Amino acid sequence: MSTHPPTTQLLQARAGTVTSAMREVAAKEHLDAELIRAEMAAGHMVIPANPRHRNLSPMGIGIALRTKINANIGNSALASNLCHELEKLGVALRHGADTVMDLSTGLRVAEIRRAIIEASPVPVGTVPIYEAVCRVERIEELSGELLLDVIREQAEQGVDYMTVHAGLLREHLPAACRRVLGIVSRGGAILAQWMQAHGRENPLHARFDDLLAICRQHDVTLSLGDGLRPGCLADASDAAQFAELETLGELVRRCRAAGVQAMVEGPGHIPLDEIAMNMEREAHVCDGAPFYILGPVVTDCAPGYDHLTSAIGAALGAFHGAAMLCYVTPKEHLGLPNARDVRDGVIAYKIAAHAADIARRRPGARDRDDAISRARAEFDWERQFALALDPERARELREEAMREAAADAPPRAGDHCTMCGPKFCSMRLFRGLKGEGDGGHAAP
Amino acid sequence: MSTHPPTTQLLQARAGTVTSAMREVAAKEHLDAELIRAEMAAGHMVIPANPRHRNLSPMGIGIALRTKINANIGNSALASNLCHELEKLGVALRHGADTVMDLSTGLRVAEIRRAIIEASPVPVGTVPIYEAVCRVERIEELSGELLLDVIREQAEQGVDYMTVHAGLLREHLPAACRRVLGIVSRGGAILAQWMQAHGRENPLHARFDDLLAICRQHDVTLSLGDGLRPGCLADASDAAQFAELETLGELVRRCRAAGVQAMVEGPGHIPLDEIAMNMEREAHVCDGAPFYILGPVVTDCAPGYDHLTSAIGAALGAFHGAAMLCYVTPKEHLGLPNARDVRDGVIAYKIAAHAADIARRRPGARDRDDAISRARAEFDWERQFALALDPERARELREEAMREAAADAPPRAGDHCTMCGPKFCSMRLFRGLKGEGDGGHAAP
Repeated sequence: MSTHPPTTQLLQARAGTVTSAMREVAAKEHLDAELIRAEMAAGHMVIPANPRHRNLSPMGIGIALRTKINANIGNSALASNLCHELEKLGVALRHGADTVMDLSTGLRVAEIRRAIIEASPVPVGTVPIYEAVCRVERIEELSGELLLDVIREQAEQGVDYMTVHAGLLREHLPAACRRVLGIVSRGGAILAQWMQAHGRENPLHARFDDLLAICRQHDVTLSLGDGLRPGCLADASDAAQFAELETLGELVRRCRAAGVQAMVEGPGHIPLDEIAMNMEREAHVCDGAPFYILGPVVTDCAPGYDHLTSAIGAALGAFHGAAMLCYVTPKEHLGLPNARDVRDGVIAYKIAAHAADIARRRPGARDRDDAISRARAEFDWERQFALALDPERARELREEAMREAAADAPPRAGDHCTMCGPKFCSMRLFRGLKGEGDGGHAAP
Repeated sequence: MSTHPPTTQLLQARAGTVTSAMREVAAKEHLDAELIRAEMAAGHMVIPANPRHRNLSPMGIGIALRTKINANIGNSALASNLCHELEKLGVALRHGADTVMDLSTGLRVAEIRRAIIEASPVPVGTVPIYEAVCRVERIEELSGELLLDVIREQAEQGVDYMTVHAGLLREHLPAACRRVLGIVSRGGAILAQWMQAHGRENPLHARFDDLLAICRQHDVTLSLGDGLRPGCLADASDAAQFAELETLGELVRRCRAAGVQAMVEGPGHIPLDEIAMNMEREAHVCDGAPFYILGPVVTDCAPGYDHLTSAIGAALGAFHGAAMLCYVTPKEHLGLPNARDVRDGVIAYKIAAHAADIARRRPGARDRDDAISRARAEFDWERQFALALDPERARELREEAMREAAADAPPRAGDHCTMCGPKFCSMRLFRGLKGEGDGGHAAP
């Protein structure tokens, strides 16, 4: 193990060392490397970078940085196909996912994960309990030892960060049982069943020091999972959720004491008016550890559109302090996403993250918006497409509109768009007003 | 005109009369009719209901009510087809639009509008200057008289509310000319060009008393348009926007003095962090007149997804006080929406409005969400579809996921979903924990 000394980015930051990963992150974010080091040392930022993940381009996650988005991929026991997963990875990367999680639970998990790590320049995360469960017949057969074995193997394989639901304790279960939707986190539900069957504490909590030793050895970042995240608005911000959060706060401190990087996962399903409170509470309880939120979905009744319902919550969550947004696809609550769903989910979250970065007034965050606005003013369609978050979709819809308009009237020169027609183009009129001559259009 | 006495819902509310329209609105909103009357009398609510619109089911718009959404339909000079417009109307109504605006600017505007009014049980709005411009060769040929003629004819036809950009004054133009995107409102740009050409004040402002007389005669609700709404983030919340808002506040008072119902239109493109301020400022300047906002779009650089970028802004706007949300479709900035775009826009806005109603803790607003959550807990897929905002889409995506999963593995009984497979279903596990037996799944 001489090539992988048992140190972490966190320990190096505390020792005053600016690592090459920190320098790379600083360059990407247009920030000073010393700021990155200081944020790392304070535990307000993580760089999930397992030294075994050879082709990784380091990515920082923290409040001082651009908001990141994660795309979940991975097969289930029912849908298992390596090619499909690599296709989804490609779609996620092409559209701008900052990290990916391989949530495979079916057959060939190790093989799929290896392929994903090899193909991914962005950090790869996992939920190790999924693989552990695949190795037993019944959940009751899980053990702390087995979980640690899986975590060690995944760490050796090069996984950059891992979700562990170590904060879910036996004492939290009665409150969870009073909920409408109980426990919707798979990891949380598995551990709850195990605790119930054995009458013992969560093995990930009981063996947390051993877990930390592995993570420190491989500089695996822990993503402290919220096994009790609310699965519907009726369960949002309840006693179960916040009891677990207190435990997550304690675990953050234990991670830091062990020199292990940590972030904290959050809800879930939260009404719009409780999002700011949730972000502030996490920051307080977990002492500014990066908050990695799933959505949140702000209404339960739009299955088929949960990328959108949750992008609303995600934008607001990031504005109020979340560091990374886990995407939700249109298939949420309905089934496993395919490549089209991955694209829709990633773009929705790029929008949410970008809107929040603008609202947080991050330096330069609005540059792209201003550039596309100038391109609109100049009727430069090609430049608008080039600056669009999804150039392909923008071009496709514009061409569709032109086709449909042409079916009704002969096409004309490009001095107006199909929304207005030549006499009504506000932007053409406005250019006339400014004495700048003629042109096309942007908004109705 | 004896069947249409020159009185308005506003005058009747002030006189202490609860009209049948007010009673209908009260019943729809599960509110007391006297509250509706009081809100009407204060000018905090409108019921756009032209007595000539025979088949109208009255709809209230105001802060005390459920958030409403409007769908724009209508042809342009280039795409003109009555069947297409009625198809879009049907799609908008089926998916829950609370009002529709006919923004036709092309040929046969009167004919298309007549057909839309006849087919629409929801209030129909227009922007009369669009038809006025169709009657002249050059914008300079417009006149106050022509605008009033068009407004009178549309009122006699049964239009329930009309957007007039009467608040845009000559003195506002220099500030608008300093913008990146200038004037993006078509009505605003037309009036600006007219004012520039004639060196005279906005004819809608100059003739505002005559305009009010027509609206009072037919109880047409005025929607005071924001001709200077920002068309990009760089122009948001600027001097031009807020100067016009002051004039809109004065016009609200003149409407009220004349017994004419009024609401106020708002932006546009606004960053997330300025939305609350914009809503509060309108409420203050316009003395609580219903605010009818377009989006706002919270990032400029996602053409093809502006239903989503703007649903984020719309949800937040409604949460902070907007009464009605004008939808934006995926075609925004690219071309005229077709029926698919109308559906995507309406659903995105149903989600935004509903999320805001939940967050404002309106009585009963979360009932549907709680019902679908219980259906999830019970694995009752049919009930989930029935309660979904778009049952068709939810079913379609679920079936797609089942098909794709079946291609990889033989289908099993309905005790789990394609996201988890049988061993991983959190909700099945959770039911086991509660001793409720076995079942399927909701969230990953």
